[in-house]
Amino acid sequence: MDIFETMQTCRAMRYLKPDPIPDALLDRVLFAATRASNPGNSQRWGFVVVRDAEQKQRIQAAVSDAVRSVTEQAAEAARAEPDAVDPMNQRILAGAGHLLDHLHLAPVIVVVCAHNDYPPGAPPQLEYVYSTVYPASQNLILAARALGLGTVFTTFNLSCEPALREILALPEDVQMGTVIPLGYPERDFGPVTRRPVAEVVHYDRW
Amino acid sequence: MDIFETMQTCRAMRYLKPDPIPDALLDRVLFAATRASNPGNSQRWGFVVVRDAEQKQRIQAAVSDAVRSVTEQAAEAARAEPDAVDPMNQRILAGAGHLLDHLHLAPVIVVVCAHNDYPPGAPPQLEYVYSTVYPASQNLILAARALGLGTVFTTFNLSCEPALREILALPEDVQMGTVIPLGYPERDFGPVTRRPVAEVVHYDRW
Repeated sequence: MDIFETMQTCRAMRYLKPDPIPDALLDRVLFAATRASNPGNSQRWGFVVVRDAEQKQRIQAAVSDAVRSVTEQAAEAARAEPDAVDPMNQRILAGAGHLLDHLHLAPVIVVVCAHNDYPPGAPPQLEYVYSTVYPASQNLILAARALGLGTVFTTFNLSCEPALREILALPEDVQMGTVIPLGYPERDFGPVTRRPVAEVVHYDRW
Repeated sequence: MDIFETMQTCRAMRYLKPDPIPDALLDRVLFAATRASNPGNSQRWGFVVVRDAEQKQRIQAAVSDAVRSVTEQAAEAARAEPDAVDPMNQRILAGAGHLLDHLHLAPVIVVVCAHNDYPPGAPPQLEYVYSTVYPASQNLILAARALGLGTVFTTFNLSCEPALREILALPEDVQMGTVIPLGYPERDFGPVTRRPVAEVVHYDRW
């Protein structure tokens, strides 16, 4: 699939079918993720690919416990003052609630991680972790979309880090970046909603 | 261009021609960058597109002053113990030296930034900045490669933040993520060098 079409139609898919994904597609998605930019080509990433039903349920429980209060507060505020919330945010909120309830039913959850000691032996530096995991995550979701698979780029890990570390048995020097459910989408791909370039570009200086 | 081919051949291009880039191509690259994932579709990014010769020279001087000692130390260590350095790292080092000398000659330097207050009014949180700027930067380099333009994903900003902030007149609540030179490449695109997927994937738990 053409890269521009892929990027333009790479909607966050919060409604996923439970149908399994062929291994060959998953492999292509992971291959694409590992072709991403990363500091000095150190490739300090690691991908935890969760397909085991019990592991997915543990992840769903941990994420749901941690995130639900946030989304429910936002949903309540939206109900109290519906005019203050734009339709896009209302859709995101409804989708997030659905995703929290159904996260474990996605056939695969990928947790994108990186070792936090780059160069090896150096003190942890967030920039190296994040400039490793986020570009890889972006490649991952683009590749998935090109193959007709839905994903949503989440940082659920930020809200329940200790619980997820334990569930995934992460070594101490490994840090999570994203938690990305993957599956065939229940809804259609279509153009993403973004501001025009002219609003966010500055020439020569801010 | 097919997205998988784009990702597989998106080499860091540290040798760029000074030839100008048509505005239409630059616009497509920026459009692609702004289609990226970002927290809650907040799109808190800002792109400083530097084409002015004097501004580019200021950036080159600031980056070069800050980064050269690092690359020279590494180059010296490599000369002292050539067997300890793998050829890939030697190529990266040589390329980095060339890039530092020629950064201002790239027709465009894009500095990808984000407001650091997401949600608006919240205290700065690096995760929101980086999960905004790095996916956008990844889209940017992929789109450039698909159009035959070379880039290299750098975090030069980390080494000379105060100087660059001043040169670019960045507001206090705006943080830089990447400094990406853009131009027609002097060398050929080709497959990126990456470890096999099997070495970096863990199933169900680390």
